[in-house]
Amino acid sequence: MVKKVLSLIIGLSLIPTVSFAATSNEIAPLISSIDMVWMMLGAFLVFFMHAGFAMVETGFTRSKNALNILMKNMMTIAIASVLYFLIGFGLMFGDSLGGFIGTSGFLLTGQTDQIGFFVFQAMFAATCATIISGAVAERIKLSSYLILTIFMTGIIYPIVGHWIWGDGWLAALGFVDFAGSSVVHLTGAVGGLITVLVLGPRIGKYAKTKVNVIPGHNIPIGALGVFILWFGWFGFNGGSTLAADPTLIPSVIATTLLSASAGIVASALYSHIKFNRIDATLTLNGALAGLVGITAGTANVTPIGAIFIGLIAGIILVEAVQLLDRVLKIDDPVGAITVHGICGIWGTIAVGLFAVEGGLFYTGSFELLGIQALGVISVILWTLVTTAAALFIITSTGSIRVSREDEIAGLDFSEHGSSAYEATNSIYNENLDMKGEFGIGLLKRLDRLDQKSPDSGEQPS
Amino acid sequence: MVKKVLSLIIGLSLIPTVSFAATSNEIAPLISSIDMVWMMLGAFLVFFMHAGFAMVETGFTRSKNALNILMKNMMTIAIASVLYFLIGFGLMFGDSLGGFIGTSGFLLTGQTDQIGFFVFQAMFAATCATIISGAVAERIKLSSYLILTIFMTGIIYPIVGHWIWGDGWLAALGFVDFAGSSVVHLTGAVGGLITVLVLGPRIGKYAKTKVNVIPGHNIPIGALGVFILWFGWFGFNGGSTLAADPTLIPSVIATTLLSASAGIVASALYSHIKFNRIDATLTLNGALAGLVGITAGTANVTPIGAIFIGLIAGIILVEAVQLLDRVLKIDDPVGAITVHGICGIWGTIAVGLFAVEGGLFYTGSFELLGIQALGVISVILWTLVTTAAALFIITSTGSIRVSREDEIAGLDFSEHGSSAYEATNSIYNENLDMKGEFGIGLLKRLDRLDQKSPDSGEQPS
Amino acid sequence: MVKKVLSLIIGLSLIPTVSFAATSNEIAPLISSIDMVWMMLGAFLVFFMHAGFAMVETGFTRSKNALNILMKNMMTIAIASVLYFLIGFGLMFGDSLGGFIGTSGFLLTGQTDQIGFFVFQAMFAATCATIISGAVAERIKLSSYLILTIFMTGIIYPIVGHWIWGDGWLAALGFVDFAGSSVVHLTGAVGGLITVLVLGPRIGKYAKTKVNVIPGHNIPIGALGVFILWFGWFGFNGGSTLAADPTLIPSVIATTLLSASAGIVASALYSHIKFNRIDATLTLNGALAGLVGITAGTANVTPIGAIFIGLIAGIILVEAVQLLDRVLKIDDPVGAITVHGICGIWGTIAVGLFAVEGGLFYTGSFELLGIQALGVISVILWTLVTTAAALFIITSTGSIRVSREDEIAGLDFSEHGSSAYEATNSIYNENLDMKGEFGIGLLKRLDRLDQKSPDSGEQPS
Repeated sequence: MVKKVLSLIIGLSLIPTVSFAATSNEIAPLISSIDMVWMMLGAFLVFFMHAGFAMVETGFTRSKNALNILMKNMMTIAIASVLYFLIGFGLMFGDSLGGFIGTSGFLLTGQTDQIGFFVFQAMFAATCATIISGAVAERIKLSSYLILTIFMTGIIYPIVGHWIWGDGWLAALGFVDFAGSSVVHLTGAVGGLITVLVLGPRIGKYAKTKVNVIPGHNIPIGALGVFILWFGWFGFNGGSTLAADPTLIPSVIATTLLSASAGIVASALYSHIKFNRIDATLTLNGALAGLVGITAGTANVTPIGAIFIGLIAGIILVEAVQLLDRVLKIDDPVGAITVHGICGIWGTIAVGLFAVEGGLFYTGSFELLGIQALGVISVILWTLVTTAAALFIITSTGSIRVSREDEIAGLDFSEHGSSAYEATNSIYNENLDMKGEFGIGLLKRLDRLDQKSPDSGEQPS
Repeated sequence: MVKKVLSLIIGLSLIPTVSFAATSNEIAPLISSIDMVWMMLGAFLVFFMHAGFAMVETGFTRSKNALNILMKNMMTIAIASVLYFLIGFGLMFGDSLGGFIGTSGFLLTGQTDQIGFFVFQAMFAATCATIISGAVAERIKLSSYLILTIFMTGIIYPIVGHWIWGDGWLAALGFVDFAGSSVVHLTGAVGGLITVLVLGPRIGKYAKTKVNVIPGHNIPIGALGVFILWFGWFGFNGGSTLAADPTLIPSVIATTLLSASAGIVASALYSHIKFNRIDATLTLNGALAGLVGITAGTANVTPIGAIFIGLIAGIILVEAVQLLDRVLKIDDPVGAITVHGICGIWGTIAVGLFAVEGGLFYTGSFELLGIQALGVISVILWTLVTTAAALFIITSTGSIRVSREDEIAGLDFSEHGSSAYEATNSIYNENLDMKGEFGIGLLKRLDRLDQKSPDSGEQPS
Repeated sequence: MVKKVLSLIIGLSLIPTVSFAATSNEIAPLISSIDMVWMMLGAFLVFFMHAGFAMVETGFTRSKNALNILMKNMMTIAIASVLYFLIGFGLMFGDSLGGFIGTSGFLLTGQTDQIGFFVFQAMFAATCATIISGAVAERIKLSSYLILTIFMTGIIYPIVGHWIWGDGWLAALGFVDFAGSSVVHLTGAVGGLITVLVLGPRIGKYAKTKVNVIPGHNIPIGALGVFILWFGWFGFNGGSTLAADPTLIPSVIATTLLSASAGIVASALYSHIKFNRIDATLTLNGALAGLVGITAGTANVTPIGAIFIGLIAGIILVEAVQLLDRVLKIDDPVGAITVHGICGIWGTIAVGLFAVEGGLFYTGSFELLGIQALGVISVILWTLVTTAAALFIITSTGSIRVSREDEIAGLDFSEHGSSAYEATNSIYNENLDMKGEFGIGLLKRLDRLDQKSPDSGEQPS
């Protein structure tokens, strides 16, 4: 009898375990739901960064090339999304071949549980590619740019990504790049640099004795773009936690906010020191410098560390923009190479300096610093070689640069046969002119006045 | 004694059940919280789509009508929200009268647990109405448009919604329209079409022998609008799951992303084939075509299916825009009828072709295809008849079209007494002119120059 | 033996308790995760409001001051974030010294569990400060504005915040300001008012006999800003729940939506009654009026109450803008003092009128109404005195207003040496001109034509 009772008791003692199991069964989908909501929010925000890139690049360049830049940005996300689905995701996160390249999961075959992760990562692939469009703006052929985008999102970026975020050799070494200062930003910037070196500067940019400033045509939409990028960056860095970790995420968001803020303060003050005025485009780029700078270490540094990283990024930005533009004569219309490249390097190295665990003040810090440096060098070399190879293939069929006439006329006219604003080149009804309207009305009145003037030979063509 | 022990044991054996109950009690509000967070995120994003519509419609039309279009968009969301609270939600989701119309829940009476769902749905009602504002832009009276919006959001849309998303007859037949290719987009587009047929084309649009292009005045903000719409669409489709389903949602987001991307690629390439250039506005509309196309089937198709739906939507867009504009001479300034109507039909039918369960490759697929076609026809007929009736009522008191003089002067001047940009028609202090400013300064200088010219009779009035 | 059994049973009887504990241990981090996701979403949206403020203020003012306003907005969020981290958060939420000021938690020391809450609150501090930038636009020195921002975000706002949202004396009295009609909006507006009184109106605003309207240069981006602000406001009000409450949040979002909608309808109709046209800027500001109005009571009123609050806010807006501009001759370029101040007062008082518990229809309502009035008066007095003191310090070293020449030339030129749009003052290559481009090309052609004209003495300088 007592045995029976005991066996009953033993039986009962299993019940709580059953209860545990049942509870976990109920909780597991909840955890999946929360993590999914967080990752989707991150993906949406990173998607929206493409609106930011489009506005920054459009606003910081000339009106005659606005349509062209918009098309590049719009088509980049389109091509990148499809291509990353077809091959990129597999190359990046598939079963590793020697830590170098992924080899499975193409078209998400057998990866239906990874579809949310795919969406999030697809946005990153597009980001890497779109960085190039800013550097090469106002002179590259649309077709050449699109082929380069195919190389970048289909091959170059996924392989770097595999090294660091997949099951790759840099990950194995302990390289830290939480949200992609190197993976995304440096890769894009090096791709942009190589292409710019092949392209050369815009007509009129570098005269014999002076460096001309070619101002953007609409800084307010450029500034809106910076706000959108910052907004999206909370998803870029925050979503890279890949799970709704209630401790880590607030820290990531705080360091992102503070580094960007410090980048603004530093670039504003430093531009005031250097030029005796707060330079608007440098200050706007200062926000982006702080953001790129914190991206690698956002999960590993303190808020105070983030402020230092941002301050230094803001100063680096001002100096590096000058260096590239004035000394090296590399014509980068929106400052993309500096913002994403130089500050991407800084951000990656800064992990070795400011990480709370493994930083300079801890044993083994120099080792981490070495690994970070090795990672930076590897990303640069890989992207340099592969982009050069891609450009070699592309240029084999002709120049990647539009003709001199087309560049002067503007790429909107030559590539799209239209204008971003009310246009003179359209079949346009005379009745449509009206008082107070920009564009066509103004230009027609000017044309009329020009024709009336006795010596109006030198009309813009 | 043993009995006592046994009874104790039996008592204990109930405890795990109690534990289960308690656990579920703790988990239920968590599920509610996650679902609510997801639905609110969706509602916010769909709300933000109205900023996208406003920018697309403003950018794709002329500067002289910009204020007017902005007012239409802003007032549409205002009127729709209040009216949907007062009657729309009840007509759509209230107790069904024969599957045709809801009859309860007005002012959310007795529906306080549905308030989150109401918010989400109110955004959809406003979306349906705002589609019309693009088609009728630059010539409809503001007052007529607002009365039409009251009909649309108060009656026409909620009843279609009841049929398909409420306890209605099309839902009972098995009609599939997950996020509203028909409910929202086709309804709005048919409403726009009927109104455009009553309105007629803009002055100068169709000359005797040629079709004039009236280009938009600011494509960059139009492109920003497309990005915002796409961003918001993740909430439109994703939020339509109504719960934070960790499996379904990533699939919905992936198909949304891929169909939009494919729409861009298709319209860009197809416009290049047809016109020998990548047309900017067609490519931008290609993104929207892909989005409208996937909206009905987003939860039922594979990523590869989504790519096909988007590709076809992009090609349909280019052809249908040509057909409406060149052949049928239906003047739709922003392409709303094609994007939301033709591609809405395509998206609804595509469910029958590409749905993984119930598609052409499965038994019963032709049945589903038939139901989808019946739904499309029903939505078209209902909206056609009711919009025509609404317009009959509205036109009984006078024309819905502004006068010829007002149209030429611009609706900003005639309806709002102002201008979207620095204006000539304002009481404006001469001291405010300055070097480098657009608008007033330029126009005054032109006026001065015109007066100096000997034969400047033909001044814009 | 039986004892042993009994002791075993007693032991077992603890197991369900252990099971409860374990379950709760599993659930607690889930609750933290969901609450964190919601608060972060709120923080992101409130951050994005700064893009909205930037666009509203840029669009509603003149193009010659656009860069300057963008810099003010960008630097406000930067300074506020860093300063709020260093001292503001501690002053606001630290251990209270007599209900007046917080005294701990500076640099988040010992507050690592509060880092998410800090991020959310930092965005609010920046919002309060940026309200001022609109009121003082087009004439304040950038340096003066930045110093004022330091006072506002470092001291003035955190202390008001402590009173109401920290462990302060107004909170102890039962003052209700759920999301900050007074804490954020009224504080910012009073700061703006005092500064405007010190600054005086813009040149040309008030002539001897008439009040000039100085129209904004780009209402479409201003309207975009309003949409962005509204979008962000869902996070402002919704996030103020601080937890993902599945019942409270939908109600907060619904009241926010309906009050803003009612504000639009009211200001549009009321402007039509007064001026015989729907005024665009008043209607846009009507949305903001409704939003500020509902902010205090969003969690305490019904949807119908929200509609009434918004309707009244929209009418108050139209009247108060007229009063300040026409009668009191307070030059507030974007209407910030009315929108955030007058409507902030209305919103705070409205809690006493419309709150479902404690409103006029309940016992004790007059007490709440009295407390709300006391709170409003306290916030006004505190901000008035401290802002005046801050301005006294700032003006001790010179005027806070730019010179007459700089104001006429535009602050973009005088403070930043540049222009928001393609500029005449840049070193710009002649080759870059092209047909169809705004800005430089047009202006150069005008210059040429002017020089050809016989009597072109009166050129804009």
